[in-house]
Amino acid sequence: MSDEKSIIDKLAINQLISDKPKSSTEISRRKFLGKAAAVSTVVASGSVAANNLPPNVPAWQKTLGKPVNSNPYGQPSKYEADVKRLRVPWLTPDSIASISFTPLAEIKGMISPNGLAFERDHGGLPTIDPKQHRLMIHGLVDKPIILTMEDIERFPTVSRIHFIECPANSAMEWKGPQVGRLQFTHGMTNCCEWTGVPLKYILAEVGIKPEGKWLLAEGADSAAMSRSIPMEKALDDTLVVFGQNGEALRPEQGYPLRLLTPGWEGNTSIKWLRRLEVTAEPSYQREETSKYTDLIAPRDESRKDLVGKAYMFSWIMEAKAIITFPCPEKPLKDHGKYVINGLAWTGTGKIKHVDVSLDGGVTWKEAELNGLVLDKCWTRFSLPFEWNGEEILMQSRATGEDGYVQPTIEQLREARGVSSIYHNNSIHTWKVSKKGEVESVQV
Amino acid sequence: MSDEKSIIDKLAINQLISDKPKSSTEISRRKFLGKAAAVSTVVASGSVAANNLPPNVPAWQKTLGKPVNSNPYGQPSKYEADVKRLRVPWLTPDSIASISFTPLAEIKGMISPNGLAFERDHGGLPTIDPKQHRLMIHGLVDKPIILTMEDIERFPTVSRIHFIECPANSAMEWKGPQVGRLQFTHGMTNCCEWTGVPLKYILAEVGIKPEGKWLLAEGADSAAMSRSIPMEKALDDTLVVFGQNGEALRPEQGYPLRLLTPGWEGNTSIKWLRRLEVTAEPSYQREETSKYTDLIAPRDESRKDLVGKAYMFSWIMEAKAIITFPCPEKPLKDHGKYVINGLAWTGTGKIKHVDVSLDGGVTWKEAELNGLVLDKCWTRFSLPFEWNGEEILMQSRATGEDGYVQPTIEQLREARGVSSIYHNNSIHTWKVSKKGEVESVQV
Repeated sequence: MSDEKSIIDKLAINQLISDKPKSSTEISRRKFLGKAAAVSTVVASGSVAANNLPPNVPAWQKTLGKPVNSNPYGQPSKYEADVKRLRVPWLTPDSIASISFTPLAEIKGMISPNGLAFERDHGGLPTIDPKQHRLMIHGLVDKPIILTMEDIERFPTVSRIHFIECPANSAMEWKGPQVGRLQFTHGMTNCCEWTGVPLKYILAEVGIKPEGKWLLAEGADSAAMSRSIPMEKALDDTLVVFGQNGEALRPEQGYPLRLLTPGWEGNTSIKWLRRLEVTAEPSYQREETSKYTDLIAPRDESRKDLVGKAYMFSWIMEAKAIITFPCPEKPLKDHGKYVINGLAWTGTGKIKHVDVSLDGGVTWKEAELNGLVLDKCWTRFSLPFEWNGEEILMQSRATGEDGYVQPTIEQLREARGVSSIYHNNSIHTWKVSKKGEVESVQV
Repeated sequence: MSDEKSIIDKLAINQLISDKPKSSTEISRRKFLGKAAAVSTVVASGSVAANNLPPNVPAWQKTLGKPVNSNPYGQPSKYEADVKRLRVPWLTPDSIASISFTPLAEIKGMISPNGLAFERDHGGLPTIDPKQHRLMIHGLVDKPIILTMEDIERFPTVSRIHFIECPANSAMEWKGPQVGRLQFTHGMTNCCEWTGVPLKYILAEVGIKPEGKWLLAEGADSAAMSRSIPMEKALDDTLVVFGQNGEALRPEQGYPLRLLTPGWEGNTSIKWLRRLEVTAEPSYQREETSKYTDLIAPRDESRKDLVGKAYMFSWIMEAKAIITFPCPEKPLKDHGKYVINGLAWTGTGKIKHVDVSLDGGVTWKEAELNGLVLDKCWTRFSLPFEWNGEEILMQSRATGEDGYVQPTIEQLREARGVSSIYHNNSIHTWKVSKKGEVESVQV
């Protein structure tokens, strides 16, 4: 018991309830966590009378429930209908080449459920028959091969939990707050358990010629979405993935087969993967030249030589943390004790620590990392705090195990200017108003 | 590269392909993994011509795909329609008090997707409005309380990946093989990331009186499913859970709130949790006296004193391993190299190792544990093997970190007889026929 006690002390749980009832009969009048408990509507039955509580039984307990397996493939409760992915119509007026955003405010834990994982398609969502799907590996190889899905699943497989983040995540924030929801400021990311075959096993089958230093990965969508992958990454932790959170890949994640380049720009994890061509040089595809490059216009006078140039092949998604509670979708409702909750990740490895500021970055407190801390994976952090109705500028700042510290937006602007679209991993600020409402601001 | 090479050698990947093409032009005639590659139907475009391959492009790449976010809550591909939970009608003719089984042969990785996680309901599936749902904690406490869902989510939360297994899993196998699918022999288990509040935090709020040694946990379903939980477990790793694989609990997993008693009999993780009563003694509920007890009829002559007695409160789900490939649903198709795949778990902690036998338990080889090895969690194991068409008796045997070794069915019968229903964690045998078909046998 002493261990439990110390944990509880540490988290200040004993102070979580603002008004504690003094006796059991007070329960119908008390306020719990600042809000009246609706004792009259639904309370317990049976021995409850001993506590002078009404023996109400909820309506759903008085009738038989629905038959088991009414849904052989289950669905969420109808009460969760508002928890869904959303598009930003002004951002991509055309819904064929568009993005749907993960509702991060509603995500629990470190897994993004398959139904809610963000989607970025460049030519719409193809409907692919897995029996007809093939993966060809050719180019500078000893033995080109064409693999069926059955062939691929016969290789040794691994399962790893990794985040994917579109390099355009938070792009709308470069010039200042433009969207009013966490879902849109940071929702171009997901984190799933991916199951597949290490690409190095497949490449060992075909035999890479000495001059083969790059791969061209091509998707089977109408955009033939293509990226160049250096051989070093291909032979490192890159996977050819067919499973997502225990089941087959979802269509919008590349069913039946995708590449996964952990920690790298999301669109290098080519979906609907149909072709890997081994090449000597990068292929300079459309989506790594005209797009997914960072035009630089540094404010730093000493680097004016960079004006008009662009970063290309800037693959790694660097450390980033975001507070998911409170946020615009989940404001504070009463004064009192709360637990700030958030997600952090880095494409370079594990999260080392996350700091939280309540004064716009002047002072910082180290948050607790909750649950598993895995490589290139969403990591949960939390920090208890008490809100007494004052205005707060709430920030979180991730540090990777490599020592990299998430920068401010001003540091990014100094280095790159405001012409960038991609790789905005800056510290984000939520302003909590005296009413408890939360909005995105830049300080 | 030397590291990759050694991994590949270890897994014998270089031998995975039975007939290797000698040159690229042979690719249209070759057999890969023993099966003809359907080169004529779907292959790659562009630079493929350089390899003398037809420049076919699949139909779905020639037309625009569906708009992004056509499903704001995504669904599996239509080609996965056969991957679903199933009931065994003769086992529970009434579909209100029934079971649907996880399709384990189709599960990838260590997470069971929310749509496929097994379901056991005793009074049907209630439809609960989370705004109306309450959790009451009362009985031998200092301060009984009634919590709303908002109250509960305001506590510090944790996320943990744990299996749940119904104690009746594999019950149909006690007397001998009765069902022809892995889904039915072992599918009363799931493994999800569960998010919720450690129960000890909530119990610290109410204050347990010194004589309070047990909890009665009651569900809000029409069966008022109830179990007695000793305080030691309640204060250990028991959670009050509202999240499952990143989203709200699914209705069939107890939406909006369930208990989770990691590693214990599935039905102690009371779904639709509405009431926790602190008591001095166990409550001897229907589902822990007339059911969920193990009637003993030992064959061991020296233990005849136990005849007619029953194990009660046999909470822990002990170590168990099952081969998920090959299995009746996933037979072997050709001779050659394969990777045996399976799942193991134990309610006492981590899996230490899993051994695989190809000769009905005479000799054993240690399998590789793949991916994360977590406490009270599904653990993946695998073992490469070559099949030359002989009949095989394939078994897997789990050993927990506590040293407990999964028993044979004969050992269980010796100790308990054949009147048991629950806690059949015996070593399972798949017989692979000369045709590659797989059936459940007992040896």
